[in-house]
Amino acid sequence: MTAPVPVNIAEKLASFSDHWNPRIVGRYNGNEVRVAKVDGEFTWHSHEDSDELFLVISGNFAIEFRDGLRKVAPGEMIVVPAGTEHRPVANGECQILMLDREGEPNTGASPSAYTRDRLEVI
Amino acid sequence: MTAPVPVNIAEKLASFSDHWNPRIVGRYNGNEVRVAKVDGEFTWHSHEDSDELFLVISGNFAIEFRDGLRKVAPGEMIVVPAGTEHRPVANGECQILMLDREGEPNTGASPSAYTRDRLEVI
Repeated sequence: MTAPVPVNIAEKLASFSDHWNPRIVGRYNGNEVRVAKVDGEFTWHSHEDSDELFLVISGNFAIEFRDGLRKVAPGEMIVVPAGTEHRPVANGECQILMLDREGEPNTGASPSAYTRDRLEVI
Repeated sequence: MTAPVPVNIAEKLASFSDHWNPRIVGRYNGNEVRVAKVDGEFTWHSHEDSDELFLVISGNFAIEFRDGLRKVAPGEMIVVPAGTEHRPVANGECQILMLDREGEPNTGASPSAYTRDRLEVI
């Protein structure tokens, strides 16, 4: 058995610059830990079989739900329940950490130009 | 459907002061998001059926494994695979965020004086 290796979130985020293209930085109980840089409005979508956890690292980030907008400040997290329509909104570049079930598409059940089929492991 | 509410990690941590007594601050895909203040050496243990994710918020934190110590700095995370013996070590007070499968004892398969049977939801 080799002990696991710590992952520096800021260093991972500093290693790429494109938006809405999550990278996988770890795995936990059948889920992927992902980091992403985001800017602007994403598409409406839901994940039918997975909750989605967002932890905001930096920036002015929010998630729009059908019943209103929730701001999520740096140092805050929010869990979007499976099946819940939502749309991430970043007012300027934001850095986020996410958890999604392994293999879950970033656009959930609503493929779009934002869909990334095979996320890079970094 | 009511949209989920953001959770401020620092505020949750500021709401209690005891050590080695994790609080539940969220749920994700059958797992609990926990926060804890820790200080000193915990007991050796493993979680047989759950990985355990640690994200260090503050402090001088490390995890000891049978093959050596891994320092985990603030802003770093580490995932301890299920079945892996480990011992958290905090050199002074540290604040950490954890993920464990729902209901997983904090001392895993090795009950001790550190075991907390029913974690508080805050």
